[in-house]
Amino acid sequence: MFGLIPKEEKFFILFQEMTKLLIEGATLLKELTDNFDKIESYQKKIKDVEHEGDKKTHEIIQKLNKTFITPIDREDIYDLAAALDDILDLIDASAQRMVLYKIQTITSECKSFAFIILKCCQALDKAIKKMDKKHEEVNESFVEINELENEADRVLRESLGKLFSDEKDPIRLIKWKEIYETLEKVTDKCEDAANIIETVVVKHA
Amino acid sequence: MFGLIPKEEKFFILFQEMTKLLIEGATLLKELTDNFDKIESYQKKIKDVEHEGDKKTHEIIQKLNKTFITPIDREDIYDLAAALDDILDLIDASAQRMVLYKIQTITSECKSFAFIILKCCQALDKAIKKMDKKHEEVNESFVEINELENEADRVLRESLGKLFSDEKDPIRLIKWKEIYETLEKVTDKCEDAANIIETVVVKHA
Amino acid sequence: MFGLIPKEEKFFILFQEMTKLLIEGATLLKELTDNFDKIESYQKKIKDVEHEGDKKTHEIIQKLNKTFITPIDREDIYDLAAALDDILDLIDASAQRMVLYKIQTITSECKSFAFIILKCCQALDKAIKKMDKKHEEVNESFVEINELENEADRVLRESLGKLFSDEKDPIRLIKWKEIYETLEKVTDKCEDAANIIETVVVKHA
Repeated sequence: MFGLIPKEEKFFILFQEMTKLLIEGATLLKELTDNFDKIESYQKKIKDVEHEGDKKTHEIIQKLNKTFITPIDREDIYDLAAALDDILDLIDASAQRMVLYKIQTITSECKSFAFIILKCCQALDKAIKKMDKKHEEVNESFVEINELENEADRVLRESLGKLFSDEKDPIRLIKWKEIYETLEKVTDKCEDAANIIETVVVKHA
Repeated sequence: MFGLIPKEEKFFILFQEMTKLLIEGATLLKELTDNFDKIESYQKKIKDVEHEGDKKTHEIIQKLNKTFITPIDREDIYDLAAALDDILDLIDASAQRMVLYKIQTITSECKSFAFIILKCCQALDKAIKKMDKKHEEVNESFVEINELENEADRVLRESLGKLFSDEKDPIRLIKWKEIYETLEKVTDKCEDAANIIETVVVKHA
Repeated sequence: MFGLIPKEEKFFILFQEMTKLLIEGATLLKELTDNFDKIESYQKKIKDVEHEGDKKTHEIIQKLNKTFITPIDREDIYDLAAALDDILDLIDASAQRMVLYKIQTITSECKSFAFIILKCCQALDKAIKKMDKKHEEVNESFVEINELENEADRVLRESLGKLFSDEKDPIRLIKWKEIYETLEKVTDKCEDAANIIETVVVKHA
């Protein structure tokens, strides 16, 4: 695993702990869209998970800064840590915007996004767990994340199309446009993270 | 060329193939603004070029991951591939937004942006072709891209000024603001790409 | 200082000159919010400082490209130069937007942002000056920047909450939303810069 990195440095385990937090955050976001009357309590729970993620990311970076490894891997580990942290930040930002904008009802598009995001985080977790396996085994997860990102892209296009043709209140339109775009960015970041994992896997093949 | 990279790795040729696709995409965007009644067919053609660009970028990254080169160059090649890919993505995003928002007429600002973007892509292509020449020879292209980016900046400021003083329909304002900002981002990315090329040229001077 | 970098290369001094420009730009932004009737003359002064910053950043990158240092440090220096440049660009963009959108009165939220931004730039300047000291000494600045960024985040949430509940004119809402978000991004970038400085300090501890 990680070829040039001493096993005892445990980056592998730290990344797995991080993707576990991603799944936790994404599950809460999914539950938020299914229990919209309890949105504020779910948003607070997501915020807590995001704080945990910040601490975990800081732990990875600190360990990285004190570990001697070759620069190539260092950059990859740093980029992967940053991408995973961004995913959790964006999940938190989505929930926060819904509360801040006093959204009254949930849309089916929001539920679709929450479902896709959860699937993405689960696929990322799988990819991290298989990082030490052959490329073929982990490749399956990359294909899945890529398909999910394309699906999120399609949902965004449809959401915006519907919004601009149906919503006559410009302020409500501004709110939903931002929420949809933030939700879609979560899946963009998942794809970024998957690309970095692929880079590491290919290099150490 | 590329000093430390074995010539047979052909990064140079791959980047030239990529800037050729950029010119193709930018030419289609220019034609779209000149033939606005055929916007949907042009947007589909741009989407196809964008797909070609994705494949080309993947090819560059794959080759890079399997090539032994020093880390400094690796980062530059990776960043350049990502920047060129972003340019094509943003050209595609601009056309997509125009279709999605059911824009009925084209503005002269859009035509100015399309012209500047095409000029930028041509200058990038020239810079890539001269990467193995002396700094003075390729410097001309950097100056040109910088001037074009400043011009795009000015067009954006004027477009937004006009939009906020003339457009009374907030939803139409939101649509155009996003289209103009996306078009301007294309030239920002061209400048990023030019900066990376400059870095490579200076290092290997 | 900078362990692997020859002292004569003076990156240290160049970075100090850059944070001096940041403080200058942030001071002008603060004065702009305090003297809103002279907004256009202040915006022009900020633009001048931003041009100085561009030149300084170019100087750092040029020197970096001609200096032999190990890749790890090279990336850090490059990233730090880019982050400091982004801070000044965003200060300039905030002032520009206020002029472009013909904002008639200043809000107390704007003044809060300008104050936080100035404090952030001063803390960054302190951190740069202490880069060669022990981690404990410079750590104080990181904690301060982190607290300021959290405060800016809170001000943004409150500003947007107020804006969406009070402002009935959607076009005015769009203008202010963008101004507040741009001001908050300045502090995000300050935190990015602080994280890079921390990385350098920890590595050379």
